[in-house]
Order: sequence, then structure tokens, then C-alpha cells
Amino acid sequence: MCFLLKCMCYMHFLGGRRRKTQTETFIPICCCFVFCRRPPKLRQISWLLFVFFSSDIEISRAQSPKAVDVLAKEIGLLTDEIEIYGQTKAKVRLSLLERLKDQPDGKYVLVAGITPTPLGEGKSTVTIGLVQALTAHLKINSFACLRQPSQGPTFGVKGGAAGGGYAQVIPMEEFNLHLTGDIHAITAANNLLAAAIDARILHENTQSDKALYNRLVPVVKGVRGFSSIQLARLRRLGINKTDPETLTEEEISRFVRLDIDPSTITWQRVVDTNDRFLRKITIGQANTEKGFVRQAQFDIAVASEIMAILALTTSLEDMKERLGKIVVANDKKGEPVTAEDLGVTGALAVLMKDAIKPTLMQTLEGTPVFVHAGPFANIAHGNSSILADKIALKLVGEKGFVVTEAGFGADIGMEKFFNIKCRASGLVPSVVVLVATVRALKMHGGGPSVSAGAPLKKEYTEENLQLVADGCCNLQKQIQIAQLFGVPVVVALNVFKTDSPAEVDLVCKIAKQSGAFDAVPCNHWSDGGRGAVKLAQAVEKAANQKSSFKYLYSLELPIAEKIKTIAQKVYGAQDIELSPAAQSQIDRYTRQGFGKLPICMAKTHLSLSHQPEKKGVPTGFILPISDVRASIGAGFIYPLVGTMSTMPGLPTRPCFYDIDLDPVTEEVKGLF
Amino acid sequence: MCFLLKCMCYMHFLGGRRRKTQTETFIPICCCFVFCRRPPKLRQISWLLFVFFSSDIEISRAQSPKAVDVLAKEIGLLTDEIEIYGQTKAKVRLSLLERLKDQPDGKYVLVAGITPTPLGEGKSTVTIGLVQALTAHLKINSFACLRQPSQGPTFGVKGGAAGGGYAQVIPMEEFNLHLTGDIHAITAANNLLAAAIDARILHENTQSDKALYNRLVPVVKGVRGFSSIQLARLRRLGINKTDPETLTEEEISRFVRLDIDPSTITWQRVVDTNDRFLRKITIGQANTEKGFVRQAQFDIAVASEIMAILALTTSLEDMKERLGKIVVANDKKGEPVTAEDLGVTGALAVLMKDAIKPTLMQTLEGTPVFVHAGPFANIAHGNSSILADKIALKLVGEKGFVVTEAGFGADIGMEKFFNIKCRASGLVPSVVVLVATVRALKMHGGGPSVSAGAPLKKEYTEENLQLVADGCCNLQKQIQIAQLFGVPVVVALNVFKTDSPAEVDLVCKIAKQSGAFDAVPCNHWSDGGRGAVKLAQAVEKAANQKSSFKYLYSLELPIAEKIKTIAQKVYGAQDIELSPAAQSQIDRYTRQGFGKLPICMAKTHLSLSHQPEKKGVPTGFILPISDVRASIGAGFIYPLVGTMSTMPGLPTRPCFYDIDLDPVTEEVKGLF
Repeated sequence: MCFLLKCMCYMHFLGGRRRKTQTETFIPICCCFVFCRRPPKLRQISWLLFVFFSSDIEISRAQSPKAVDVLAKEIGLLTDEIEIYGQTKAKVRLSLLERLKDQPDGKYVLVAGITPTPLGEGKSTVTIGLVQALTAHLKINSFACLRQPSQGPTFGVKGGAAGGGYAQVIPMEEFNLHLTGDIHAITAANNLLAAAIDARILHENTQSDKALYNRLVPVVKGVRGFSSIQLARLRRLGINKTDPETLTEEEISRFVRLDIDPSTITWQRVVDTNDRFLRKITIGQANTEKGFVRQAQFDIAVASEIMAILALTTSLEDMKERLGKIVVANDKKGEPVTAEDLGVTGALAVLMKDAIKPTLMQTLEGTPVFVHAGPFANIAHGNSSILADKIALKLVGEKGFVVTEAGFGADIGMEKFFNIKCRASGLVPSVVVLVATVRALKMHGGGPSVSAGAPLKKEYTEENLQLVADGCCNLQKQIQIAQLFGVPVVVALNVFKTDSPAEVDLVCKIAKQSGAFDAVPCNHWSDGGRGAVKLAQAVEKAANQKSSFKYLYSLELPIAEKIKTIAQKVYGAQDIELSPAAQSQIDRYTRQGFGKLPICMAKTHLSLSHQPEKKGVPTGFILPISDVRASIGAGFIYPLVGTMSTMPGLPTRPCFYDIDLDPVTEEVKGLF
Repeated sequence: MCFLLKCMCYMHFLGGRRRKTQTETFIPICCCFVFCRRPPKLRQISWLLFVFFSSDIEISRAQSPKAVDVLAKEIGLLTDEIEIYGQTKAKVRLSLLERLKDQPDGKYVLVAGITPTPLGEGKSTVTIGLVQALTAHLKINSFACLRQPSQGPTFGVKGGAAGGGYAQVIPMEEFNLHLTGDIHAITAANNLLAAAIDARILHENTQSDKALYNRLVPVVKGVRGFSSIQLARLRRLGINKTDPETLTEEEISRFVRLDIDPSTITWQRVVDTNDRFLRKITIGQANTEKGFVRQAQFDIAVASEIMAILALTTSLEDMKERLGKIVVANDKKGEPVTAEDLGVTGALAVLMKDAIKPTLMQTLEGTPVFVHAGPFANIAHGNSSILADKIALKLVGEKGFVVTEAGFGADIGMEKFFNIKCRASGLVPSVVVLVATVRALKMHGGGPSVSAGAPLKKEYTEENLQLVADGCCNLQKQIQIAQLFGVPVVVALNVFKTDSPAEVDLVCKIAKQSGAFDAVPCNHWSDGGRGAVKLAQAVEKAANQKSSFKYLYSLELPIAEKIKTIAQKVYGAQDIELSPAAQSQIDRYTRQGFGKLPICMAKTHLSLSHQPEKKGVPTGFILPISDVRASIGAGFIYPLVGTMSTMPGLPTRPCFYDIDLDPVTEEVKGLF
């Protein structure tokens, strides 16, 4: 193909743009006709059309994934350690951890980002590009561990996730749809617990102690006995009896009544759909519910505490224990009521027994990926599962690399990764890769606002070294945050076609001056692993540094002190301000014995502060804590810095307008 | 083992009882010690303990299922025709139908039942016992096609399904839990459509025509274009334009506004959980929904029209078409608003693309089973999928048998199987197996009432030939109903240990006198396929009869006439009485062009009439039709005979009290 065409293709690709207009595509073809001695051949035109028109799903589909059993064999899994789901997905059994328990772990790399624009700066593509570079180009075993995306936004505003361009997980439609059913399992478990709460309140409110007791402990074939769940409850109540006939009236009353205070219920129902009309609802209005109406809400499924539990659990036994510890409400005396009190722990564990196994997929270059768990990054910790990381660390071997990403900017996702996830797993991170873009840095340097759907202003498409230089304060601050934890930082500059060489050089220079171990430009979106080879080399070097990893705070500190530590040291706040509600919740949780849990801040990701419009490095602000909540099963306290939406909506023109299925080829269209 | 022990075991087993008390188990062991010359060996005692204590799940687990790829090979599936889900489940691709299109179909057997007691009379066990007898004992290729059970009742009142005793689908925990995710896919599709309705109403109510148009048809990179979904809508509106700039203001208004009348919305949200507090709710109460509150409800997932569509569809193309035709409400002019109008057809098809493939499992004796779709038997037609039946009929070959079951009594499930399912599939049934029990016949003969949980009265545990003889009128009537369709009937008497030989003989005699081709006692619950060999032989003979299958009514008849035909000829009603609401709905559907659809009666299954307490063969009653609704995508009109609950509740002591997971062995406990 003529040189001119090749150059144009390359330049076009470099831009990392997702959809091309007709004009953009045909200009190079026309140029070729006009300037070259001979017109391009039909095959060349077809290739060109593909390259220019191709969306993420088309790139994904153009590459046939290898059969998942072949992939599993390549990475050393035994036949009975995988459960195949179709041709391209498999669940991996936890028994592997036992088999490989004496194998040393590989290096553990976290991909985090600077404070992003609303468009996102490409952490997922960097994660995938990096493992593609490590495995396929540097021949070092590596694994990417990613979050499973919620299905709601796929049909709503955001569209599909899975990386993008030539740094993708494939098949991307599998990644974005039901996958292996984990989110559906979470939905089922979450909603069974919710149904159990309201049904229990109704039954307690409409029956005498005796009637309740007769139903809860029925005579079956002449014999009356407690179930093991009920015996456990008796023990918790301090009633050391096993014969149902021997309980006193007072003991029966304590046993049969959870006495839930409906106004304290924090457990919400969930759906994996963007359904804004379920944000606030009134339930129980049918006659059969006898007037016990109350206000409630549905959250999106990934906001369920069970998702956070899945992400933080370390074994089936641990998961069951965490499920049982979930606090759903207080009783009328102010004591916590748990899933275990409702007798539903076993059922929840049964519903989650397959979801606990990570799902194996592959990148566009055939390297292994685990997709497992995807908790919210505000009301939860926004990191994929500990189990996937642990299994991957064994599989890659001592010299291998496991790369995982944390949601939002480093001030949120990375801080939670270290203080919550690493604390739960005991794993020690080797390197932080901090993703930056010239676009986001310009915004922090005072560039005009950036919003989804609106065209980018010229400041972002033309060279502007001053904006870049001014914005690097955010990059510097995020590097410093990582250094608080004693982990070396490699800055990955995700290059767009509009970035000038001078801008790219400037960012890398400032990054290194700010304490980064290294800073490299990356072109993985257009070039796949090849575009991230320099990053991979830098990460490999950084991983050989001695890590002096430490947590930011001791769990022994009072809740308010822990919040203050994060606010001051990480966000740069002057102080925090607790609302009376927040203070009262802190007092309650401390009294209930939950004071020694880590903190999971629910704050905007669009600023280091609580105000999304404050870019760069805001200082001197007081961080307002409006409320404090707890996910006891997951194991953290989450202070609310402002209101967090836990249910996205559908816009006027949702993504589903472009999504279609070809009934003949069975191909999915329009899932970008 | 001593003869005495063997006899006792056998008698005990024959009873078909699910759980044994300690006394019941230890008596035979003690007898053995007392009456026999030598005590039983340890191995014998262990076996005895297993036999006596074993629940359905324990029997299920005691038999290791063969690997599903082995099973698939045995029945002639090619490697690329299956998608394996774990070790014991696989989805089968529809491409098989194309490959085997010239292969003649096997015989098509429907298992239906007499009017049941609330305890159920064992249609599923007969279905499984019959295929076990055909395949494993008579060496005739056969396939069972079953409904997927809803997960809600598994944790609620009913517990698990999957047949029972030695006539089960295994592993029963897989059958009863997520399976291959079909019900979750239905939930996701159903709720996306529901969210789209309310979001659309909100957006239309808060935006001008112009604003809506700009958002629905945005300028992307300087170009404005309709999506293919929007072009289709324009064509439906009679606007033959493709350039968004050329529409008149009036055309824009018609294009952007669906003008849904919220009071006419019939599309409800669903969850696969027994959540009674969602039976009637108010939605849209958050400030973000700007006051557009309305009353709504959640149904259990299997009540979704999308489940009925899955059961009735014949191809991916047909499913997509049916999904698009779903009517969700009327507009303010009284015209139907469809899923296609909301632009969501493609997304629904994408969500359902895997669910359309039947799931392959196996019986306890290793014979193949398809589990696919499980629509309600009242507001829908209560039959498993056409696609599973079609594929199975090809796989068994001309001399083979496919056995499927219809929900409820034959007056409902079988009538709908013939008039709705067979009409949609074009398949011709060969034989009806009508399941009866002495227990149910005694109830119809005037025995005391039977209810779940309460001990059976002595009339049911002692011989009473008069009650049996009197109750056989119901059996006779159900045989006659099958004969209306020209299909031979074999009566399968599901024998309990309390049935006397004289009772068994009497039922078989009366059945044959009433026109059954044959009538045989079955012991499949205790003996597996061996206990249903006689039934299998009778079915094989009956299938060689010439079938003169015909539908009960012509689709050309007016809606009310079709309802009347079913009421009079099947239920034995004197006439029907339409409420004003029902009449007005009939008029509306007729006007909207839906008058030629078949009828799906939503009636109690506990009586041939509309009154559950009227047993035997009620006569002279007027069937009241309180309302008439439509599932246009599924393709039927459903008249309501009384109120139908579409959301079960959790009782005071739900099944989940006994359900647990062993975190070490990963075994599920307590799923009966």
C-alpha cells in the first residue's frame, strides 16, 4: 500500500478516537487517488475502511479469541480447576490456591489515575496494554485483573467497557453482558435478604410470640427441633438450650422477635438496570401487606454490599462469615440486626457459591485476564477481587506480574486499594502506574470545562505548554499520595493524536522531577502491547526497587481520626466537619463495636476536594461529612462527602438505540 | 443383608416420603438385631441409614452425573453445537435444527395431570421416570423437556423442584439455582424495558419537541442521522424521509412523542425473589423524577411476558420480532405502544441471545434432559420451550420419544399446550400421559380437604374404594378433554405406599372404561426407570395409534367465542359472564387487530371450575371473566377468571432456614 496511505492510517490511529466520520475516512483514499501514481487496490481499500470505521466491538470481533481451555492450559491450570462457560469464558476454582500455596507470588502492580475529566483517562486500556506488552512482547508472564462492568450503563449513557481500541478484553460483548452471571447472583442474594427483612417485620407484627414460635420451630412428623441456624441464634442470645420445649416465655419472645425498627433499615433492593424511577419508592401497598408500607429504594446491583464482599473475600468460609455479618437495620433497642439473625446466611452463600470463582478471559493479544467483582468506587472501594489477584499472583510465578486497576483517581481508588483491599488480602504492592493525559492536565491547569457529549475546546486540540505545566500540580500531588504508602510510581502518559511532542516531553519531565520512578508515553490504544513496551520496561525496573509499603493509618484510631487522616494527608484538606448525623452514626458504630474498621470515603472523583469544579490541587478546604454509614459484612465504614447517586438513569437517547442483534449471524451491533 | 431388612427398606421406599424421622429409621435396624440370627454388618447399616435418611438432594448427590460433553456426544451433538457451562450443563445451539432439518421427528408425548391437590400429583417425576424407563430400560432414544423452576419458591415455601426420589434431574442444586442464567437474562430484559417506559414518559413530559428531537437525533461529528431503529419508526408513522433536516414540525412531534398514557401501562418490573412487599408500590418519588409518581408492581420473573416469548419462539429472528411486538401501554389516543416504539427491541434481543439456547442436563439414570423456559401456567401457558422440543424431536430420531409436561391440570396446561404451543410450533402430539393419584381421586370423591403442611386425614392413608370410585369422575373428564383433541391417553397412576392394591386396580379399570388407551401403576419415585417400564411400554403402543390431532377452536372466532368454547367444552361451564371491563378490553383488542390470537385462560388449577373448593366435575356454573389482558409478543389473549397472584411471598419460616453451604466441601444442604 502506498506510503502516504500508511502514514495517514498511523496518524489517524494514534488519535485514539472511537468513531470516524465519513469525511475522515475518505480523505486518505481520495489523497491516494490524487497524489499516488496508481490507485489503491480493492483489498487495500477494504482494509482502510475497516481501520477507519472500526469501533471497539468491531476490533474485538476481528480477532478470534483462542478457546478458553487452550488459554487455561497455557497458563498452567489443570483440567479440574476450571469450569468452562461457552467458548471464551471459564470460572477458576479456588482449590488452585491450595495446590499452589508454596509457589511465591509474582509482582503486584496497581494502575491508578490522576484526577480525571468526566471522559476518563484510560486506566483500563493502560492495564490491558501493559499486560499485552509484558506477556506478548517482553515474554514475562502477566495477568490483568479487572472489574466486571455493570450491565446498566451498557444500555444507558456509558456504553460498554472492556478497555478499547487495541487494548481490549475479548469478546467485548461477553465482558459487557451477563458474563458468568456473578452480578445476577449478587442481585438474587441481595434481594432475598431484602425480602426476608420486610416479610419478617410483617410476620412479627401480625402474630403472637406463640404463633411465631410454632411456625419457626414446627413439629415435623411428631418431632420438634431447632435448625442449626436457629441454634446459632440461641447461642448469640445466650440461651444455652437445644430442646424447643424447654424455653421460657421470655426466652421464646427474645428468640422469635428481631424487633426491627423499620426506620433504621439500610439494606436496599437492587437491579442491574438504570432505573431512575426506583430511586425512591413506597413498598407494601397491597392489601396482603396489611398497611405496613414504608419508603425504600432500589440501587444498581453493583452498589450492593454483597458486591463489596465478593471483592474483599479471601475464601468461601470467609465469604459466608461476611454475608452473615451484614447489618441490615437496628432493632428497637438500637442493636444491629444481621443477615445471620434473619437465618438467611446459608441461602446467600448458596446463591454466591459460583460467583466467588474468578472468570478467566483474554486480551486482544491472547494474554490472560481475570474479570471478577466490580464494587462502586464511592460507597464501596472500587477494586476488583482479592481472590482473582491472589490466584493470578500464584499463576504468574515469582518473576511474573499481576496488573490490576483501582476506580476513580488515585486519591480515592488507590487509597482504598492500599488501606482496605491490601489490608484484607495481606498482599504487598510493588509498583503504582499512574495514568495521566495531556487533556486532563490542561483541565487542571485552568483549561475550559470538559463534559461528555460536548465537543472539546481548542485548548485541548492545540499545543498549550503553559496549561500543561500548570496542570501538572495534580499529577505531582497524586505521585506524592502514592509515596505516602512507600510504593514507587511510574507515570503512564496515555497519548492522544492531538498531543504535541513538546507537551508529552514536558509531562514526562515534570513527573520525574516530582518523584516518579519513571514517566513514559503510551500508545497502546492504537498499537496494542507494542505501544506500551516502554511502560512495561519501566514497570519491570521499578518492581525491582525495594518496596517499603505501609498503610496510611492504624485501625486502632477512632473513626473520626481515620477520616481526618485521609482528608488531610490524601486530599489536602485543612480539616473535616462532621454533621450532627455523621457524629451520631460514628458514636453508634463505635458503641456497636465497629470502630476498628477501615474507612471507605464516598467522595466525588472529579476533584481532590469535595467540590467537583475545584481542579488542580485545592487547598485550605474543610471536608464536610454529611453522614456515615457502614458495610459491616464487607468490613468498612463509609463517610458520605455529599450525596452519592446509587442508581443511574436512562437519558433521552439511551445507548440501546444503537444496540442490535443480527438474527442470522448472531452478532451484536452497536456495543461501543 | 437379611431378608427382613430388605423388605422393610422396600416398603419404606415405596411410600415416596421425603424425610424420615429417627424412629422410622432405627426400627428396622433394631428389628434386625432382635429377630435375625446375626446382626447386620457395618456396611449394611450405613447403606440402610442412607436409604432411610436420604432427601432428594442426597439421592441426587449420591449419583455422579456424567460429564456433559460425554452426554452430548452420546446423543449425537457435534462439538461446535454445544456451549459447556461447568461440568454438568451445556447450552445447545439452534444451528442443530438446520443440520438435522431432514431428519424425521420422534414421537411427541405430553404429560398432563388430573385436577391436583395443593400437594401436586407428580407430573415431573412421571416425566423423568418415563424417559428413564424408555431410554435406560427399553433402549429407546428419549428426551425429557422440562421447565426451569423459578428461584423464588426455592427459598420460599415450595423448596426445590427437579422431580424427586429416583426420578430426578441432577445435579438438582444446579437445576434449582442459577442454571445457565436464562431467568436472570429475562429479568434484565424485562426491567430494561420497564425502565425505558418511565424514563421516556419523564423525558417527554419535561422537554419541548425540539429539545427531544435534538437529543434523539443528535449531531455527531457534524453529521445528523437516524439510527435504523428510528428509520423503522418513521416508516411505521408513514413518514418516508431519511434526512433528519427535512421533517416538518408536525412530523417531528409525531416522531418524538410516544405520548404514553401512564394509567394504561401493563408492563411490570420483575425479580426472581418471593418479595411480597413489591406487590403494589409507588415509584418515581425522588426529586429527580419531578413528581411523575405512579403506582406499579413487581412480578416474579417467570411471570414476565418475555418468559412466555422464550417458551413460544421458534428462532432468533422470531424472538426478536416477538420482543418488538410486546405492547407495554396505550398512547393517549388508545393506540398500542410497543417495545419497538421505545427503540429497545435490539437491546432486548441482545440480552436474550444466549437464553434462547436450551440447556442440556441429565436424569439420575444418565438420560438426556432439556431444561428451557418456565412460564406461569395461569397468566401464561405453563409449558417448556418449543425450541427444546423441536431439537429433542430431531435428536431422538423417528423411533424415539420426547416427553414434556404441562403445568397444572390437563384442563389448563394440556389445553394450552394444544391450542397455544402446538399451534405456534406446528408439532403434532402422539400421546397424552395423564397422571393421577389415589389421593387426588379420593379428594374429588368427597374426601376431606388436603393442604400443604397439614397431616393427611385417615381417608387418605386407609383403603376407601368408594371415595376412589366417586373421584374417578375427574379422571374421566380429563380423559375426555384430551380426546377432544384426538390424542390417545395413557393414565399413569403415581402409586403411594398407602394405596391398596384394590384401589390401584380400581383406578386402572375405571380409566380404561373411560376411554384411556391404557392405565398403569408407576413406582418411579422409589424405583427410578424400572418403576415406569410398564408405563413406557403402554406409551410406546399408544404412540403407534393413528393420531387425529385437531385444535379446539379456530383463531378466526371472535375473542368471546373462543373463551366460551374453552369454558364449555373443557371446563364444563354452562356459559361465561364478561365483566364490563373484560368486554371493553375485548373490544379494544379486537379494534387494535389482536382478535385472532389464541386464548390463555388464567384460572385456578384446583378445580375444573373457577371455584377451587368445587372438586370432582362441577357442572352448571357460569364462568366469570373479570378482566382480559394480552401478551401480544408471546401471542395470546389472557382472560382473568378471578385474581391471579403474580408475586409469591415468604412465609414465617421460609425454606432458606434449612439451606446451607458447606464451605469446605462446597456442598449445598437442605435444598429439598
